[in-house]
Amino acid sequence: MIELAAARYGKAGVRLMRVDRSTTPHRVRDLTVAIALEGDFVAAYTGGDNTLLVATDTMKNTAYAFAKQHLDGSIEAYALAMGEHFLAFQQVDRATVNVREHGWRSLSVAGTPSPDAFVRVGEGTRVATVTANADGVVVEAGIEDLIVLKTTRSSFEGFPRDEYTTMPDTDDRMAATKLTAIWTYGSPDVDADASFEAIRSTLLETWADHDSPSIQTSIWIMANAAIARHDEVLEMRLVLPNLHHNLVDLRPFGLENDREIYTPTVEPFGLIEAAVRRGEG
Amino acid sequence: MIELAAARYGKAGVRLMRVDRSTTPHRVRDLTVAIALEGDFVAAYTGGDNTLLVATDTMKNTAYAFAKQHLDGSIEAYALAMGEHFLAFQQVDRATVNVREHGWRSLSVAGTPSPDAFVRVGEGTRVATVTANADGVVVEAGIEDLIVLKTTRSSFEGFPRDEYTTMPDTDDRMAATKLTAIWTYGSPDVDADASFEAIRSTLLETWADHDSPSIQTSIWIMANAAIARHDEVLEMRLVLPNLHHNLVDLRPFGLENDREIYTPTVEPFGLIEAAVRRGEG
Amino acid sequence: MIELAAARYGKAGVRLMRVDRSTTPHRVRDLTVAIALEGDFVAAYTGGDNTLLVATDTMKNTAYAFAKQHLDGSIEAYALAMGEHFLAFQQVDRATVNVREHGWRSLSVAGTPSPDAFVRVGEGTRVATVTANADGVVVEAGIEDLIVLKTTRSSFEGFPRDEYTTMPDTDDRMAATKLTAIWTYGSPDVDADASFEAIRSTLLETWADHDSPSIQTSIWIMANAAIARHDEVLEMRLVLPNLHHNLVDLRPFGLENDREIYTPTVEPFGLIEAAVRRGEG
Amino acid sequence: MIELAAARYGKAGVRLMRVDRSTTPHRVRDLTVAIALEGDFVAAYTGGDNTLLVATDTMKNTAYAFAKQHLDGSIEAYALAMGEHFLAFQQVDRATVNVREHGWRSLSVAGTPSPDAFVRVGEGTRVATVTANADGVVVEAGIEDLIVLKTTRSSFEGFPRDEYTTMPDTDDRMAATKLTAIWTYGSPDVDADASFEAIRSTLLETWADHDSPSIQTSIWIMANAAIARHDEVLEMRLVLPNLHHNLVDLRPFGLENDREIYTPTVEPFGLIEAAVRRGEG
Repeated sequence: MIELAAARYGKAGVRLMRVDRSTTPHRVRDLTVAIALEGDFVAAYTGGDNTLLVATDTMKNTAYAFAKQHLDGSIEAYALAMGEHFLAFQQVDRATVNVREHGWRSLSVAGTPSPDAFVRVGEGTRVATVTANADGVVVEAGIEDLIVLKTTRSSFEGFPRDEYTTMPDTDDRMAATKLTAIWTYGSPDVDADASFEAIRSTLLETWADHDSPSIQTSIWIMANAAIARHDEVLEMRLVLPNLHHNLVDLRPFGLENDREIYTPTVEPFGLIEAAVRRGEG
Repeated sequence: MIELAAARYGKAGVRLMRVDRSTTPHRVRDLTVAIALEGDFVAAYTGGDNTLLVATDTMKNTAYAFAKQHLDGSIEAYALAMGEHFLAFQQVDRATVNVREHGWRSLSVAGTPSPDAFVRVGEGTRVATVTANADGVVVEAGIEDLIVLKTTRSSFEGFPRDEYTTMPDTDDRMAATKLTAIWTYGSPDVDADASFEAIRSTLLETWADHDSPSIQTSIWIMANAAIARHDEVLEMRLVLPNLHHNLVDLRPFGLENDREIYTPTVEPFGLIEAAVRRGEG
Repeated sequence: MIELAAARYGKAGVRLMRVDRSTTPHRVRDLTVAIALEGDFVAAYTGGDNTLLVATDTMKNTAYAFAKQHLDGSIEAYALAMGEHFLAFQQVDRATVNVREHGWRSLSVAGTPSPDAFVRVGEGTRVATVTANADGVVVEAGIEDLIVLKTTRSSFEGFPRDEYTTMPDTDDRMAATKLTAIWTYGSPDVDADASFEAIRSTLLETWADHDSPSIQTSIWIMANAAIARHDEVLEMRLVLPNLHHNLVDLRPFGLENDREIYTPTVEPFGLIEAAVRRGEG
Repeated sequence: MIELAAARYGKAGVRLMRVDRSTTPHRVRDLTVAIALEGDFVAAYTGGDNTLLVATDTMKNTAYAFAKQHLDGSIEAYALAMGEHFLAFQQVDRATVNVREHGWRSLSVAGTPSPDAFVRVGEGTRVATVTANADGVVVEAGIEDLIVLKTTRSSFEGFPRDEYTTMPDTDDRMAATKLTAIWTYGSPDVDADASFEAIRSTLLETWADHDSPSIQTSIWIMANAAIARHDEVLEMRLVLPNLHHNLVDLRPFGLENDREIYTPTVEPFGLIEAAVRRGEG
């Protein structure tokens, strides 16, 4: 006997841009949307019966139409509207809507903001995920691909040494990472734009303002600060690849290298992650 | 009160190549390895205490050394050796070792295999993941990024229509996907190389030899065939992005287009996944 | 006085697939097309006058329509038809059409070729470029991203040493590259499919069957073989990144490493290129 | 008779970071360097004679050592030092040094700049290329991958229509591009940092502050402004992919779409380029 153990499906990579021309400068929203449904789809998988199988093309169209009607506010509000829409289908038990927002800033001409010209900014991608099921709605928010660096105040010492250990202790190394932080709000009724900005600032300030004995501890310190300062946050998950910067040996060239010239490396990389939560204590 | 809810860390992107020069042609193994540990690391995260924190650099070195000593056979055997090695650390509760193998084939010169020259092949990347904890060892194997196409025998009809549905039923469409299949063996004592080849063949043959009323059903049919034919497989998870190929409208140019000229698209894409398992029936 | 020094424009990234259903198995052509025009476009650039500015959207449509009408044979023939079409516009002095073909092979079921199922193959991408102007037509063909390896018979010795040289001579190293080879045919009247296969074989056989004292010499030997064996080839340009594979030092772990365990690296890489031609001698 | 027609080789993808700890905040320079040499290398290619063949590993080491000694100022000055160094080899006729600088900005904590924490910024990558040969030195500077958008003031009308033209005229479209601008300085004696900032501002302001009847004209207007305002610029080459944003048809959903909801697309794309120069008029 062979059976379906789990299933989900949806549309991903839905790119859309909304331009609000009623403001000066225009407001540009540039999104990548993914929708996934779980529910009573067994007949579709095992019996070829599409009667209940909402087309992923329909999901795409819904994302476009809802961008027109429900994207005046945060991406969380937009995702909530879509999550509730899809959960209303009788065959749907769980709808997950993931929205990534790519940032643009208004250009200025001779000190005056241009009404209609923009440049794409980096510094990470904002992301929101809404999961809706019969128990209610969970709103997660976060930031992906935020690349940060500490030129000092990072060390790694006292770790265990075995027959495969060659790396010496270091009391001063570069720390660089492409940070992903995802946090869960205690309630969907949150001022998502304000919270995002505040939590992002907390993460960056904490990154800047702590001594790091390990990336593991840095994760704890950052997540702890975010949860402690922002009552709306229940839990935060951080994923920090450790992008190693190795000191170059310049001695063969008769040169000193006192923490000055490094080679950034792409692989291998440490991959450190943790979830930190507000306990019940 | 704020607490650590979950944590894991390790080294990823460890690239290594092993050349066995004792055979003709040489045998080339080209791997990307990732190792992740879970266990008693709370003091490292919350207290800055590295006493038990195995360095990810040590993990990298272990991957190199074990490639010398434990890579005569399958990547599963290599991953098992590493999984057991890391589980033997007292502070480790779970070790996960993921190995991806990039394929090379021997070149021929005038019909004779060259002993020492190779070309990289595509057709997907073989992958193995070993998870070791106190309960024992789980071996997963699979293939990633296997791009396949059906030029006919794929349809999508009878799906529900709502106010956002514009796509018509189609009884003959292109089906294209970049398939990921991951399956779980019932026991680590499996002839992993033989099983991989056999299961890969089953997946490709089944892809070729079925009528698809939906990608969902295709997943079921392929996973079902793999589990039915291969007793060693307990469960299979398939992830199939639906890479849409749209018919080009050639009528403005006075040309017919009877399922002949298509535009392959990258985004948006359907994303269909399921896990199918051998039940207890 | 400020003037236009050079200009070209066109459409790139035109993806199309043609399925010929009259054969068994079906024949699948999977192309990425780029078209670029040069000519009397000064008024468009400097005067905002679009009267002569063929829309890139029109170019895209032309690529689709010509795929229906002119893609029975080689990509070179298809590119030639488009090159001539665009050169026929009075304002066009030069049309360049670049076509990349992505390979698929037919799947088999129980030893019998499936009529309608395919898997994408790697081993490089075939490419053709046609340049048409008043002097006639030049046809270039080639292969991109062909990843090859020599596990021995590659050395690098006797190079000059200065104050910045630290690398020792080596009489046995790995040689790996992602090869690009582009060659020019003496005439557009070439059996492009047969020539491509033959030249590709020559390149792979020569890669396998020579001793390499440097990547520079390998380029010469391969290009030389291709020109010597294939009368239709006037010139060949080869670009070979040197993808370094470094021996891992296993001595700290009490292990020998006699050319067995390597780390493949992505960056930095050598980048070696040359053009070799049939001289007039 | 077969002969070498052209050859160049070097090292690419040399990643390095320099940290100047003598300032507050630290100054971080994050570079990717490529070096290429041309000259008397025929014996290396055709004869396997490495006597004159400067190792690319030596070039990499030189990039590191020169970063220590010659990177106090602009990347142009650093590239110039290396270009002159390599040209001094007797066998070298031309040395080309290309440097890309990845931007970082200092983080602030409670309004005060952190001395040692940074975030990677986007908004394009600064690039400099120095070419040194017996005739002297040419310095090119530029910016790559600068993604900009105009939400209005862009049109495309009056272009020629043929049998393959389906696109209607539009008097108001989105214009989006990932701009590359490379300019040539009249002399190496330029304040490269100041010029870069000023020219970058001119490009962005001009992008914002013009009506675009075509991307072709936008290129002309931007390059013209840069050359007109910046006496040090001899020539500017601009490459602008036209990243199409298509209006979504919302009428099936009973919704208007007055230039509000768009789908950004990746391919196909227009590819528009030109070089504009200060003439002798």
